[in-house]
Amino acid sequence: MTIPSPAATSHAGAPRNSLTLRHLGIHTYREKVLFMRSDCHICRSVGLTVQSRVLVALAGRSLVATVNMVGAELLGNGEAGLSEAAWDVLEARPGDTIVVSHAPPIESLSHLRAKVYGHRLDDDAMREIMADIVAGQYSDLHLAAFVTACAGDRLDTSEVVALTRAMIDVGTRLTWPPSTVMDKHCVGGLPGNRTTLLVVPIVAAAGLTIPKTSSRAITSPAGTADTMEVLAPVALDREAMQRVVEREGGCIVWGASVGLSPADDVLISVERPLDLDSEGQLVASVLSKKAAAGSTHVVIDMPVGPTAKVRSSEAAARLGAELQKVGHAIGIEVRVLVTDGSQPVGRGIGPALEARDVLAILRREPDAASDLRARALQIAGSILEFSAEVPPGTGLALATRILDDGSALEKFVAICASQGGMREPPHAAHRRPFAAARSGRVAQVDNRRLARAAKLAGAPQAPAAGIDFLAPIGTIVEHGQPLFVVHAQAPGELAYAFDYLDAQQDVVKLEDAA
Amino acid sequence: MTIPSPAATSHAGAPRNSLTLRHLGIHTYREKVLFMRSDCHICRSVGLTVQSRVLVALAGRSLVATVNMVGAELLGNGEAGLSEAAWDVLEARPGDTIVVSHAPPIESLSHLRAKVYGHRLDDDAMREIMADIVAGQYSDLHLAAFVTACAGDRLDTSEVVALTRAMIDVGTRLTWPPSTVMDKHCVGGLPGNRTTLLVVPIVAAAGLTIPKTSSRAITSPAGTADTMEVLAPVALDREAMQRVVEREGGCIVWGASVGLSPADDVLISVERPLDLDSEGQLVASVLSKKAAAGSTHVVIDMPVGPTAKVRSSEAAARLGAELQKVGHAIGIEVRVLVTDGSQPVGRGIGPALEARDVLAILRREPDAASDLRARALQIAGSILEFSAEVPPGTGLALATRILDDGSALEKFVAICASQGGMREPPHAAHRRPFAAARSGRVAQVDNRRLARAAKLAGAPQAPAAGIDFLAPIGTIVEHGQPLFVVHAQAPGELAYAFDYLDAQQDVVKLEDAA
Repeated sequence: MTIPSPAATSHAGAPRNSLTLRHLGIHTYREKVLFMRSDCHICRSVGLTVQSRVLVALAGRSLVATVNMVGAELLGNGEAGLSEAAWDVLEARPGDTIVVSHAPPIESLSHLRAKVYGHRLDDDAMREIMADIVAGQYSDLHLAAFVTACAGDRLDTSEVVALTRAMIDVGTRLTWPPSTVMDKHCVGGLPGNRTTLLVVPIVAAAGLTIPKTSSRAITSPAGTADTMEVLAPVALDREAMQRVVEREGGCIVWGASVGLSPADDVLISVERPLDLDSEGQLVASVLSKKAAAGSTHVVIDMPVGPTAKVRSSEAAARLGAELQKVGHAIGIEVRVLVTDGSQPVGRGIGPALEARDVLAILRREPDAASDLRARALQIAGSILEFSAEVPPGTGLALATRILDDGSALEKFVAICASQGGMREPPHAAHRRPFAAARSGRVAQVDNRRLARAAKLAGAPQAPAAGIDFLAPIGTIVEHGQPLFVVHAQAPGELAYAFDYLDAQQDVVKLEDAA
Repeated sequence: MTIPSPAATSHAGAPRNSLTLRHLGIHTYREKVLFMRSDCHICRSVGLTVQSRVLVALAGRSLVATVNMVGAELLGNGEAGLSEAAWDVLEARPGDTIVVSHAPPIESLSHLRAKVYGHRLDDDAMREIMADIVAGQYSDLHLAAFVTACAGDRLDTSEVVALTRAMIDVGTRLTWPPSTVMDKHCVGGLPGNRTTLLVVPIVAAAGLTIPKTSSRAITSPAGTADTMEVLAPVALDREAMQRVVEREGGCIVWGASVGLSPADDVLISVERPLDLDSEGQLVASVLSKKAAAGSTHVVIDMPVGPTAKVRSSEAAARLGAELQKVGHAIGIEVRVLVTDGSQPVGRGIGPALEARDVLAILRREPDAASDLRARALQIAGSILEFSAEVPPGTGLALATRILDDGSALEKFVAICASQGGMREPPHAAHRRPFAAARSGRVAQVDNRRLARAAKLAGAPQAPAAGIDFLAPIGTIVEHGQPLFVVHAQAPGELAYAFDYLDAQQDVVKLEDAA
């Protein structure tokens, strides 16, 4: 560590390792990067090279960054730049003076190495790792190593509990007046499965508390937060969220803006490009967010199907048992509903199209999607039965009543108003049907490729973009009849989706309608 | 994949996903980065975000890069930039037009995932992974995941053999006229252990072939290539190296410039910041480089000590056995010499100081470092005994004779001349002794912290910088007597080394001289 000593000060009196900031505006996602000139005096005297980890200090704030070198094209003598992530954390302004020194060693890396070598991690070790991760001490390489070392079956239940507790401890935790706080979660992978927007108003209309935080899309065409945002603002801070829940008993807000389980957000940013399924990390991710949200009772919707995230009933049973064990250890009662994951739910895939489906159900329109409605009622009924006042076996009937008598719609409108005002979903500027190449009966639907096409069409960045799916399994179609309609805001995006779809076989598989 | 279709062309006739290059001069080490404006039309239509992996094509060449977003400060409308690594591979010039599309899926990632989940990898799987790594398909996250999944004891011997073969196969392999080609390797961690510069001339002077490729420092104050470069050029290409070996029987060149085992270079670039010791990867790294260099017989110097890389004789035995087993499988005879790794070898630590030690031994100066001389003779003698003409037990005497009669010096001078001309080591501009804080006997020396101080003093970037170590274990010193002298080219670097040393306890540990 460089504690400025007399020898560390130049004759001009300024610390010899100071540089003047220039704003470069380079977005590197979450990674904090310091851009220095390769011929900079600090690089020479401190022995920095590309990929060195350095401590950057500015007016009382500091962070650890990775060094990238640039030439005289971008920086003058004595200047440095920062990636936007680092710029924001340091609250930097052009012309500010930063002080650069070697990053202190990261003590928790010894735990990371121990895990890589096959040792078990206890509560303290997990907490130290999560604290360093949230503090931005880990480089992307370190994060990838941690995620890899924990993937597969490398975390036993006690380690998953330790990881979950650590993720809760390094973030903030909401508290609510009632002793029972409801929540739901869907283990992803099923396009259009937007039950949350129905479950929350039903449960809140029944007088229970359900402060729901949802995520935006990570790899899917829409996250629940994206779909809700079509209808009402979701980027509420903690105080605003609390006001909504106090008034209405429930909310549907974007979890990241509330700042729950920040460690999870960092880990997900690495898990996604690595595409590593880790049961332990999935359990810790889900339950740490629920605990941080202050939830005590959670229903988990677990769709199972050949192209869903969970692909067999054995895998569902194992994952469900782990969720219940870890939930028990951290004080959350978990109920798991294994559901059909063989095809999209509802019709819309993409924020606006999914929002349209939800509104049709709440408004009891005759052609509303019955599969989405049935799933939402099943989940809501299961949550209602957590209440001592709802006898086992009566939850579904109660949920149905609340939906059918308009109470759920009324509550949803009230929640939207409380979150900042309700609006109607937009319509896409361009639409094009995808026609059946033959006549027959729909035998199989590839959720993943449908989702990919919806993303190529622009979802979720363009909320109106996506896919309107018309041919659930069992539908009899004629040659040339539309299987689904692609919605896009730009002709180029429509073309992209069709370039992709035209190169695929059997996104919707047809068999002879014997 | 984006095959340009009629719909994929704008009305102006240019592919809609083309951008004009601007040179930004950003060095990101090996990582290939495409800098795009976040409001760029391609980002919108293709759905790219920060961290997306894209295929960048330019005039018949292409590569896969990671997307970073920038603002209008750096790029105009329709412009893109590249990291220097990508710029060089594409042989780009400012104003060139690139075409950007989604990167094709990386098939070998399924093998990587299998390894993460605990499955064994066979020859084909390892070869596919190494081929994709050398082709630059893996992001740093993927590389970190691979290194982590193989760390600890996660590769069995057959997998290490498969990895070694794969690393050989994806690079080029040198061939030499003789059927026996000698080589040596030191399993790192011991400052100053520069035996190669003595072993090569002794073995070559005996008429054997020893085409030695060495590395530059990775985490140490000097690699063998850095030390040799003080005395002669080392960045020879393959043809130049072959001419030197044909003429002199031996050489000491920088391995990276010859392009052997390129996969190893990529893996090391990730292993280093992760600081993960992996026995399997160490074995594959060492032996793939030897096989690629065309070697058939290798002596491995394995220093064992509390602050060396190998810390116990059990660990040495296990690693030695693995090296021999894998060597046997790929047709290399391996002999392991377990040596003392408790303290630095010779006196100098840093390129020029180590070169000075080597020259003193070759020139048979009376005060030359006897420990370095003895180790070099032991290794050279062991290599000589690989020859059918050198009976077992006579190698050491033969090596000693070749050194003592001046043949080794003569050969070394000839090799230097053949590599481009010999020169004398430089002297540092600034020196400062580090004094004993008490009287006593030297009981223990911390190799790692001495090496760190030598690096802070500027080694190896400043070849004359480093540490001259004066107090081997057992030396009796008075209070205030120098334990070592720090050499630096700049006063600031001298101060850095002392800032660090003054904050340490017992880099050289003294005990009562009873």
